Amino acid sequence: MNKQAIHHITEAPYAYGVGEKSLCLKLRSAKDDLSSVVVYYKDRYNWEGEFQTSSLNKVNTSDLFDYYETIVEVDEKRFRYFFEITDLEGNISYMNERGILNKKPDIANTFQFPFLCKADLYNEVKWAQEGVVYQIFPDRFNNGDKNNDPKGIKPWGDKVTTETMFGGDLQGIIDKVDYLSKLGVSILYMTPIFMSRSNHKYDTTNYYEVDPQFGDNEKLRELVKKCHDNDIKVVLDAVFNHSGSDFFAFEDLIEKGEKSRYKDWYFVDSYPVDTKEVNYVTFANKVSRMPKLNTGNHEVKNYLLKVSKYWIEEIGIDGWRLDVCDEVDHAFWRDFKKAVKESKDDAFIIGEIMHESNSFLKGDQLDSIMNYPFRECCLDFFARKAIDADELDHILAESRALYMNSVNRQLLNLIDSHDTARFLTECDGDKDKMKLAIALQYTYVGIPYIYYGDEVGMEGKTDPDCRRCMIWDEKEQDFDMLNHYKNLAEVRSQSKALVYGDYTNVCKDGMALGFTRKYEGEEVLVLINNGTEAYEYSLGLQGSFSNLYDGREEAIDNKIVLEPMSFKILKIK
Amino acid sequence: MNKQAIHHITEAPYAYGVGEKSLCLKLRSAKDDLSSVVVYYKDRYNWEGEFQTSSLNKVNTSDLFDYYETIVEVDEKRFRYFFEITDLEGNISYMNERGILNKKPDIANTFQFPFLCKADLYNEVKWAQEGVVYQIFPDRFNNGDKNNDPKGIKPWGDKVTTETMFGGDLQGIIDKVDYLSKLGVSILYMTPIFMSRSNHKYDTTNYYEVDPQFGDNEKLRELVKKCHDNDIKVVLDAVFNHSGSDFFAFEDLIEKGEKSRYKDWYFVDSYPVDTKEVNYVTFANKVSRMPKLNTGNHEVKNYLLKVSKYWIEEIGIDGWRLDVCDEVDHAFWRDFKKAVKESKDDAFIIGEIMHESNSFLKGDQLDSIMNYPFRECCLDFFARKAIDADELDHILAESRALYMNSVNRQLLNLIDSHDTARFLTECDGDKDKMKLAIALQYTYVGIPYIYYGDEVGMEGKTDPDCRRCMIWDEKEQDFDMLNHYKNLAEVRSQSKALVYGDYTNVCKDGMALGFTRKYEGEEVLVLINNGTEAYEYSLGLQGSFSNLYDGREEAIDNKIVLEPMSFKILKIK
Repeated sequence: MNKQAIHHITEAPYAYGVGEKSLCLKLRSAKDDLSSVVVYYKDRYNWEGEFQTSSLNKVNTSDLFDYYETIVEVDEKRFRYFFEITDLEGNISYMNERGILNKKPDIANTFQFPFLCKADLYNEVKWAQEGVVYQIFPDRFNNGDKNNDPKGIKPWGDKVTTETMFGGDLQGIIDKVDYLSKLGVSILYMTPIFMSRSNHKYDTTNYYEVDPQFGDNEKLRELVKKCHDNDIKVVLDAVFNHSGSDFFAFEDLIEKGEKSRYKDWYFVDSYPVDTKEVNYVTFANKVSRMPKLNTGNHEVKNYLLKVSKYWIEEIGIDGWRLDVCDEVDHAFWRDFKKAVKESKDDAFIIGEIMHESNSFLKGDQLDSIMNYPFRECCLDFFARKAIDADELDHILAESRALYMNSVNRQLLNLIDSHDTARFLTECDGDKDKMKLAIALQYTYVGIPYIYYGDEVGMEGKTDPDCRRCMIWDEKEQDFDMLNHYKNLAEVRSQSKALVYGDYTNVCKDGMALGFTRKYEGEEVLVLINNGTEAYEYSLGLQGSFSNLYDGREEAIDNKIVLEPMSFKILKIK
Repeated sequence: MNKQAIHHITEAPYAYGVGEKSLCLKLRSAKDDLSSVVVYYKDRYNWEGEFQTSSLNKVNTSDLFDYYETIVEVDEKRFRYFFEITDLEGNISYMNERGILNKKPDIANTFQFPFLCKADLYNEVKWAQEGVVYQIFPDRFNNGDKNNDPKGIKPWGDKVTTETMFGGDLQGIIDKVDYLSKLGVSILYMTPIFMSRSNHKYDTTNYYEVDPQFGDNEKLRELVKKCHDNDIKVVLDAVFNHSGSDFFAFEDLIEKGEKSRYKDWYFVDSYPVDTKEVNYVTFANKVSRMPKLNTGNHEVKNYLLKVSKYWIEEIGIDGWRLDVCDEVDHAFWRDFKKAVKESKDDAFIIGEIMHESNSFLKGDQLDSIMNYPFRECCLDFFARKAIDADELDHILAESRALYMNSVNRQLLNLIDSHDTARFLTECDGDKDKMKLAIALQYTYVGIPYIYYGDEVGMEGKTDPDCRRCMIWDEKEQDFDMLNHYKNLAEVRSQSKALVYGDYTNVCKDGMALGFTRKYEGEEVLVLINNGTEAYEYSLGLQGSFSNLYDGREEAIDNKIVLEPMSFKILKIK
């Protein structure tokens, strides 16, 4: 037994409440090293009674590790437990809070989950898990009202620079809600819409006003209502890491220097404030228009929390995407979560974090992140073919091991965004590659995510090129790609297994990946052949199975042949 | 290389700020498996520049693992990093957020510590680290004012039952502050003193009044002042997991049932509230007088937070010990920390948690815990002789690996309390065993802790017997033990190394344990022979060294002989 591989801690994702009395327990071991893991548990104040036992199931495997899991219940909500670990030769070890032991421990030094407090219980956001996200960069999606066009806008479809504006607006989105509905979208995420000088609006001038070039607050209310009428939730972009340099507080600081009452709202190195030399902390590298806000300051925090509640309570939005989330303090996000969930208890909170985010995703801060590591996997496997199915499966396995299962089902599994090159461009325009990536996106654990225009075959290199104007001319739209997205949305909407089901790998052979998703008696098999040769999979079953993607029944006698660069989504049960 | 043993996460205790720009990074490996660990790091927005490197030092070793550590600094406070790990054969692996890699990674998938936010930076409590705690159970320490004696008190020193009262009070403590000072005590912790019917007062009737049998609020103010005048800080006991059943809110609930406005302050199963059948959640097993408070309820939380601020702001206490801390929600303690530190920024917050407490000790909730696992080690090694020095060293090593270094220096290293049998009784009265345990307590990482009376040789089985009246009759006091405590306090007060120094094991041979503590050029060697035969230690040095315990110079020519059941504390540098 590789004792050093055995891992368990008494917090998420290794121990966490999944119900008022139910505790999910996980244990990690070296891969293929154990024959069984059993947890002994009881009420921590049950001094004399016997321990109950529960066998852990192997639920996840990566290149180095196996992950075991079970759910145990104690009426009193107070848990005391230790593990019995058996290796392949039948040698038994035990684990309690002192570590790995050779003999069965008694009641001393057991692990404790002292009380499963309701206040700490994480409430998953099921509407989000069942959804499909569509991201819009408002200036580039659709111009629905010429009257609010800013001066000097370029003709729709012109070359994009960092400065150009095109006149897209909220009316334009309202006019396309039906389009989104037909695409199977249920969550609309817009990059910032509050008043700001830039086209991207990540340098907020006024957190309480919709930018006039997009409409006004009433227009937003209309958009939210139309979305809600079409079962689409609306998520806005909160830029709280920094403000615009023309935000009132920073303007006061520029004007009054050290005497400004907003002195402690920012991090200024010396006075007077110099927006040319940039003698203050900003987002990224001396971005003068984006001075970093001091979110540790109570006034700043209260100001921003009021903003976040305002748009939920006054306009009815359903969630926030948090820009540069990971550069803002955890303490801020804990208070943010409290404030937002008070306003709407199932509001959805998504951090822009491009990396491993465990310290934000234990349940006390965010519900989700923009899952850029998923994009990295898709780039490596589909676009670049730099990793094989085995490595892809292992990276995905380790990613799932990072978070609570409920959080994994809520991650925004994007393949691109306004901050990256478009996926199709990363594929050098190879649509077959992209289609396979999307097939994975819609069948994997987490929320499928469309960056506006991907669905009609748009391309674009990194910012600003990835922010081109949406193609509405049907002659230029890729209908094949559009139908691919529509079909996959339909597949997902009809399968609870694809939303809630466990992921189990069933094959990884060169560039061919296969996995099942199982939930409450339903079982879906996904096979993706990302290789240039046909791949044959042995199902071990005979019969007629429904291909969920094209709706056809397939007669299968064990063998399933996948053509090069193809996939199948089969309903097995 | 045992790849599965390699462990790093991007939060405490593996990554955490130790200064405004400084990040402490740790990595774990299998024991004796690596020759070096190097971290490559830079500002996360430094896209083109070279990585800087820093070698990690091996700082801790347990039976299974080695722990490596370094501190790195980036002016921008934003870190991107990965590790280079070399095994004993010279094979090099790398670790980034995707796991263990065979080739050197580029900038993609690096670990991120995105911003070292001041609001999340943990501020250690140095006055606590440098202190010695004395715990008093007020009814049993000293009766200084006969006028406030409750009816039916027993004569001082009578047999203790769960119901008896003896008349100890705050005046009695005031009268003994000089005694505490001479003992080297700098932190006085009293079990609850607020109004309550019981002798232990863990069933609070009124959180705003000192129990009249102990004095009144003004008497407490007098005690705090006298303590402060003598450089002693005062910590009170906050019982927030539950109230007394005669607390006004629960009384209202008993009276008005479902119509009470305090309905949601508790967890009642059915109405009317029945204190005989106990149809409500309580502390432990149906303790009718201790109904569990709903700390998830805003009103309850606000009420208790006001209480916690009141005693700091009005009376000037220096910290809180939190009863049954681990059964109260993390969200509550986060708000508690914020409230308390607002009132006094170096207030000391100690949780009563008898087990591994990582989820409470990352810096956002507690400063410290009652370190019962330390007591368990001392029982096993000294009292029971059930583990040898090697096992003791390993358990201590794993304990230190759980928390930030600053937190380790703040743990209350108790060997007994009002909730356990007295240590001397656990030693079957063998004072030599106890003295060695105390020698470890005063020289190890963390705060030495005296449970009243231990210093004069008091015995007692578990509650209520461990709560006997303090022995003040000098004929019955064990002066030898008392001097042992005084000497050790003197040793510790004169050695910053014993407070702040790193722990390095130098020998573990049967029942003999040796370790050094080093800090800023000072080096102290501690040798403890817990065996029944003499033990010879090779110092590898020759010269005259100061024995800090007895103040004598010892001429040493490499060999140091320790008699059975003895110890030495030598200043090496």
